[in-house]
Amino acid sequence: MKYAVIGTGAIGGYYGAMLARNEMDVHFLLHSDYPHVNEQGLRIDSINGNFNVAVNAYAKPEDMPLCDVAIVALKTTNNHLLEVLLPQVIKYNGIVVIMQNGLAVEQVAADILPQASIIGGLCFIGSTKIGPGHIKHSDFGMVSLGHYIKDESAAGITPELGLVTEDFLACGIDVKPVENLCFLRWQKLVWNVPFNGLSVVLNSSTAELLRQHDSRELIKSIMLEVIAAANACGQPLSASLAESMLVNTETNMQDYAPSMKVDYEHNRPLEINAIYQSMIDRAARSGADMKLAKMLAQQLQFLSRDDVQ
Amino acid sequence: MKYAVIGTGAIGGYYGAMLARNEMDVHFLLHSDYPHVNEQGLRIDSINGNFNVAVNAYAKPEDMPLCDVAIVALKTTNNHLLEVLLPQVIKYNGIVVIMQNGLAVEQVAADILPQASIIGGLCFIGSTKIGPGHIKHSDFGMVSLGHYIKDESAAGITPELGLVTEDFLACGIDVKPVENLCFLRWQKLVWNVPFNGLSVVLNSSTAELLRQHDSRELIKSIMLEVIAAANACGQPLSASLAESMLVNTETNMQDYAPSMKVDYEHNRPLEINAIYQSMIDRAARSGADMKLAKMLAQQLQFLSRDDVQ
Repeated sequence: MKYAVIGTGAIGGYYGAMLARNEMDVHFLLHSDYPHVNEQGLRIDSINGNFNVAVNAYAKPEDMPLCDVAIVALKTTNNHLLEVLLPQVIKYNGIVVIMQNGLAVEQVAADILPQASIIGGLCFIGSTKIGPGHIKHSDFGMVSLGHYIKDESAAGITPELGLVTEDFLACGIDVKPVENLCFLRWQKLVWNVPFNGLSVVLNSSTAELLRQHDSRELIKSIMLEVIAAANACGQPLSASLAESMLVNTETNMQDYAPSMKVDYEHNRPLEINAIYQSMIDRAARSGADMKLAKMLAQQLQFLSRDDVQ
Repeated sequence: MKYAVIGTGAIGGYYGAMLARNEMDVHFLLHSDYPHVNEQGLRIDSINGNFNVAVNAYAKPEDMPLCDVAIVALKTTNNHLLEVLLPQVIKYNGIVVIMQNGLAVEQVAADILPQASIIGGLCFIGSTKIGPGHIKHSDFGMVSLGHYIKDESAAGITPELGLVTEDFLACGIDVKPVENLCFLRWQKLVWNVPFNGLSVVLNSSTAELLRQHDSRELIKSIMLEVIAAANACGQPLSASLAESMLVNTETNMQDYAPSMKVDYEHNRPLEINAIYQSMIDRAARSGADMKLAKMLAQQLQFLSRDDVQ
């Protein structure tokens, strides 16, 4: 299968480079990094060993071949680009793999390509772009893939999901295919909602937030609110997940700046809609009032006002 | 009546100077400002006209005469000093006027001097200490006084309240005696709870917070939460107070850094217990869960951790 990578940053750059290194047919769309990557390829400094890989780089989507699979790893704040982009790089009945944060981010692609198979990818990875075409992979690397269906039920392991899983596995990527994407999206929000927002509002890292009693309690309250909302939306997350995620973050993760904190420090737009607002709206439709998440989103909107406008 | 002023800052310095200027018998307890004030008196730069006044200044409470009235205008974070201080400066059956922020701040003095009359003062004033014994009075100046009783009901206009009111009025202070102190304390919290905390957490002034849509909505949500808690505690505040306070702040107040923001910028301890925790605890006892106020208090605790410890 021919792969397109849209958004060659910390996520798209890392996974795309893993595919390219293993001689998959991968085509990267780049913006400001195009000249550098076209000349020197991608460079990955990884806990599993560093490598360079020459890649097919493109500055314009119209120059790319029509691919079977598009990996979308843009920030969600750039999703308005997809309407023009996607049909240029992928067959109308191809496979789109959405490697983005948030809830229902797959629906954007589903609306643009109604005949395509949409797969959601949740990446459990510590990676950062530290220069043009240069990605530092510092922690983990696992990606969960699930087939998206609009009604939020379990799609099971579909043939398309199997094809992508097979390719990723063949390239040494730690993939876990899942039957119920929506459940997993909610589960990841349990971590993302408190840590992303609070790291920005309180100008701190995960370890700092966990070290202090009040902020740890606040994180846990927000986690429990997300879990309650997930249950209201038909995804049966257990309340015990909150404490186990906290302990896991304390013991197994390096001190970490969540993606929103990195975005904020670089004056990039914040993914408030994808991570917060779409969840708050979805929960409200099932009668769950997410007071804490809403307050955090409002604080983030206030702090991001100069950057976004 | 002989007056003692404990805490000669923006509040105690201003009202004490107003009393002293009008030849009341006032005795000021000072700490680091003692040498300056002992030599040069107090200087007030006021919207109503600047003035200097020579005052009776003391560095130690044991040097002060026993007074009839003590005006307590310390930050609540220094209230642990009162247990030793108060009995040294005031008659056991005297009058204590508590000019502090928060809820049930009067109870501290009531516990120390069970025979004394405790009056709560709520100051609607823009004033700042800008140097030793030097206070800038930039806005308003009204003070509401109410007699404190522990059961939170209306004490009415008591003789002690009448005496203090008379003295203040005679010195040109705009005093309003109130029948129900507790009601007024809750009313003031409707403003203090959102603006004090958010100005610290979001590093902004009142006008900035009101200008942006999301932060204005958040302020209003917090105000409505305080109003609901007040009602649960038997103080019938109207929900319409939220919008009218917002409009009043927008139209009638200068852009303003709330006292907690000023404290934070000067690395002073924050009045989290007086303004937030005692209210949250009181509301919980009446079954009201103040989720937003609690989150704000937790954020403030996190931000203040280096300063307080």
